[in-house]
Amino acid sequence: MIDVAFLGADVRPAATAVVIDVLRASSTITLALASGYERVLIAGDIDAARALGAPGRVLAGEVNCARAPGFDLGNSPEETLEPRAPELVLATTNGAPAILAAAAAADEVLVASLLNFAAVCERLAGAEDVLLVCAGTDGRASIEDVYLAGRLSAALDGPRTDAAQIAEFVATAYPSARDALEASAGAVGLRREGLESDLAFCAQESIVEVVPRLSEARERIAVLTAAESGRPTAVGPGLQHES
Amino acid sequence: MIDVAFLGADVRPAATAVVIDVLRASSTITLALASGYERVLIAGDIDAARALGAPGRVLAGEVNCARAPGFDLGNSPEETLEPRAPELVLATTNGAPAILAAAAAADEVLVASLLNFAAVCERLAGAEDVLLVCAGTDGRASIEDVYLAGRLSAALDGPRTDAAQIAEFVATAYPSARDALEASAGAVGLRREGLESDLAFCAQESIVEVVPRLSEARERIAVLTAAESGRPTAVGPGLQHES
Repeated sequence: MIDVAFLGADVRPAATAVVIDVLRASSTITLALASGYERVLIAGDIDAARALGAPGRVLAGEVNCARAPGFDLGNSPEETLEPRAPELVLATTNGAPAILAAAAAADEVLVASLLNFAAVCERLAGAEDVLLVCAGTDGRASIEDVYLAGRLSAALDGPRTDAAQIAEFVATAYPSARDALEASAGAVGLRREGLESDLAFCAQESIVEVVPRLSEARERIAVLTAAESGRPTAVGPGLQHES
Repeated sequence: MIDVAFLGADVRPAATAVVIDVLRASSTITLALASGYERVLIAGDIDAARALGAPGRVLAGEVNCARAPGFDLGNSPEETLEPRAPELVLATTNGAPAILAAAAAADEVLVASLLNFAAVCERLAGAEDVLLVCAGTDGRASIEDVYLAGRLSAALDGPRTDAAQIAEFVATAYPSARDALEASAGAVGLRREGLESDLAFCAQESIVEVVPRLSEARERIAVLTAAESGRPTAVGPGLQHES
């Protein structure tokens, strides 16, 4: 069954959960791993991210879309194009709880953005129990996340829940990903901070092959590493990154 | 702001919450009050409804769409057309928690179905802070509820959240209410029990003027009475039905 949760809080048990936070956490996570960061550590807020600060780690995070005070980077995907350390620590208000909720309910957790759309589709091909988890924004469903969930649902085989069909209606309502992102409430804050370029960047489809995969969730920190598209890794969750 | 919660669990604070459980609780509540029942007492499960049994009360409820053992009625709206007592006790798995969640978050709670669509629109005219609450089915969003939320959102003035826009896409995706109801997962169980006629009945638009309104929520029981469309009652919630 292909299913959609419109909010991280609505996660249900599934074999594979795919977390979506298009603006901007899942785009940033995807690009960071594609750019060469070995691991992305997701923290639920700025303080938790700051506490993870250490040599070999770059701190990234936003406060109302702007770079958090004292942090190396904001939350713009493009800022991760040149890795400065093995690990990126990313504070994300909506993405982190969605990933942690998914980790508690699913056997495998992946992260999808438009940037890795084709790679995620390839990896999910044949999967029979997929829950597409929209992170939303502050407890509210967001158009850009539901749009991508609908695009993914439409690309997969198998029966769909009502929620998956609803997401597909949203996907067909916009002529392009860029239109969906521009129409979202999330775009307002980005424009206010002069970050319109993030909308254009995050709307690019299938420009990288990396599929971020949860390797460990511990004490409200989620650790993501790169899984190859279409080739599931043999190592189970919870072990790989500690090696 | 016009907003939509896709599940009862996602309710947020609002001046007015409108609970939607098209198949079939909100249709049954609406028709019962329109038919002459003075009050509808909503219980979260069969046992809670049975405990409310008393002279002057009719028990209605379903187990997997079929009438609950020992109950006077099932959950088909048409069964309430001829009132047999002043009060109807209705057990509903998804509607009750949605109504109780709305009661905890909103100043006023109304109940909408297609049966009273125009009356609800009339009553909401000019309202500036409306949350349309889809009850869903067992923690999953349902097409028929989101469809009606989208119809209501489209009929109201004012800015819309992303969630309200998503619901409007669902509303425009079906040529008629009947098509939306037939496409829903909820229709499967009704057909299995030979209750296809409920789909046709619940798809009728604006056949009654009654808008059910929460008058009291106590110990997981919600009490609904009829509010006139477009004419808000002067009596506040929590008092009226005890007089």
